[in-house]
Amino acid sequence: MATNGAQQSAQHRFDPKFTQMVIDATGPKASPRMREVTSCLIKHLHDFAREIELTVDEWSEGVALINWAGQMSTDRRNEGQLVCDVLGLESLVDEITYKKAAEAADFATQSAILGPFFRHDHPFRNKGDTITFDTPEDAQVTYMHGVVRDAKTKKPLAGATLDVWQASTNGLYEQQDEKQVDHNLRGKFKTDENGEYAWYCIRPTPYPIPFDGPAGKLLQLLDRHPYRPAHIHLIVMQEGFKPITTQIFDKDSKYLDDDSVFAVKDSLVVEFVPRKDDPKAQFELKYDIEMAPNDDDKAEGTVLSSSSC
Amino acid sequence: MATNGAQQSAQHRFDPKFTQMVIDATGPKASPRMREVTSCLIKHLHDFAREIELTVDEWSEGVALINWAGQMSTDRRNEGQLVCDVLGLESLVDEITYKKAAEAADFATQSAILGPFFRHDHPFRNKGDTITFDTPEDAQVTYMHGVVRDAKTKKPLAGATLDVWQASTNGLYEQQDEKQVDHNLRGKFKTDENGEYAWYCIRPTPYPIPFDGPAGKLLQLLDRHPYRPAHIHLIVMQEGFKPITTQIFDKDSKYLDDDSVFAVKDSLVVEFVPRKDDPKAQFELKYDIEMAPNDDDKAEGTVLSSSSC
Repeated sequence: MATNGAQQSAQHRFDPKFTQMVIDATGPKASPRMREVTSCLIKHLHDFAREIELTVDEWSEGVALINWAGQMSTDRRNEGQLVCDVLGLESLVDEITYKKAAEAADFATQSAILGPFFRHDHPFRNKGDTITFDTPEDAQVTYMHGVVRDAKTKKPLAGATLDVWQASTNGLYEQQDEKQVDHNLRGKFKTDENGEYAWYCIRPTPYPIPFDGPAGKLLQLLDRHPYRPAHIHLIVMQEGFKPITTQIFDKDSKYLDDDSVFAVKDSLVVEFVPRKDDPKAQFELKYDIEMAPNDDDKAEGTVLSSSSC
Repeated sequence: MATNGAQQSAQHRFDPKFTQMVIDATGPKASPRMREVTSCLIKHLHDFAREIELTVDEWSEGVALINWAGQMSTDRRNEGQLVCDVLGLESLVDEITYKKAAEAADFATQSAILGPFFRHDHPFRNKGDTITFDTPEDAQVTYMHGVVRDAKTKKPLAGATLDVWQASTNGLYEQQDEKQVDHNLRGKFKTDENGEYAWYCIRPTPYPIPFDGPAGKLLQLLDRHPYRPAHIHLIVMQEGFKPITTQIFDKDSKYLDDDSVFAVKDSLVVEFVPRKDDPKAQFELKYDIEMAPNDDDKAEGTVLSSSSC
């Protein structure tokens, strides 16, 4: 950690003692982690400013962008988070936190990585129920199903819990959209005695992250689009196993290669196929899930991914 | 520039391609400087997160702090700037900008470094006038004077312009304080034919930066106080010479060694002495100023310092 500070300081033409002075201002009562995180942040912020020779005008524009983010944020919109997302920071701290959690088998840490659109009060629904109500005309209903298995023994896991949530075809989650009924496109399911789960949802569609605030401005300045590829959020939990929080992406979706928040991983891309003889659904998605036992420290592979919007 | 990126990437245990992928998302129409600055920011933000193994919970706390900063900011308060200040960032970009400006003899860049409490419409006052109106009872009026000289020839410079501004004893600049008259404790002066300037002001007093927002919260978490040492702001300009923007600090002030925004430099510390036989002032400050001619590229020393609050 902090391996390059001294080396870097020696290279620039500015006050060589300044950064250490700012770091050393931290008092004795600061918590060890607060001191460690802030010291590292100061070092990198200063190295960034020196490397790029950031001017006061440029810094002021950044400050204005940050203030704007706070001013646009509400209970239902977190623009500070979006700014981080377009810089890849959320996806990165997700990776870091997952790796740490997988190593520690730490449920508490794991459950933090749920993003702003998860709700803790998803209603339990029965196997085969739908989660789509007020289904929009342009939506393609999908029958999603699969088996949850023990990654080691490959035996089906009965009674595993699956949380699912997704945006509607207008790109909005139900809590962002007054026109959707409460808990539309979300629910909680349990696997049956054969480890099987099933529900009706909609085939997800790409949508832009909000483009009218500082995150949008940043994307515009960087000549980037705001779209996310079509995805469905999932959490799978079972006692004695490492929980899985993930997103799965439609292989036919646009933006798989240039997700505006950098959340796609190849292993998470799935295929929606036409469904026959089901008046309730046009598509089908079979998605099996393997869970790593808590005692298996090497099963990081089942910690798939996460992101929040 | 960006010398340590590859080296650092090789050391960590996270996706080695991620940061470059985020940097490469920038489109072809982004301006070269926007691309350069953002790429460097992404690199350092990611290195910071990986080095410290930043968790989602910790990142979320940072996002909440940033959003709070924007929500507290108004026309008269810039909390995003204050957060940067307590991390030393403003003082650093000042140093960088000054160094670049001194090298370029660039007035336009120079004039940007004025901070939120400078006003462009300081009224011209006559030599010997006061800038303190509604003087508070606890204020100590000071007669400040000196000579502005050519740093090379040591000859006095007639007609040089000095802008001065300072906070009142309650720690507030006039635009922050409804009780102070317009343009209280600020003014613009010219040197006379002998290069001399003079005015009555107040002896400055230490004051805390606003402590009730995220910058205050950060200081509290870092076990630091919010105080700035007593100081007076000055800008000196004369055609054919490099402009000087600076703060001067009272040598008897508290907080010279631990300015909450890290703006003090030893060369800027001045001595207030008791003044005799002047019913209008209790103290006197003699402060001579040398200006570097625009054609003297090595005269960086006259670019003294700056900060904004």
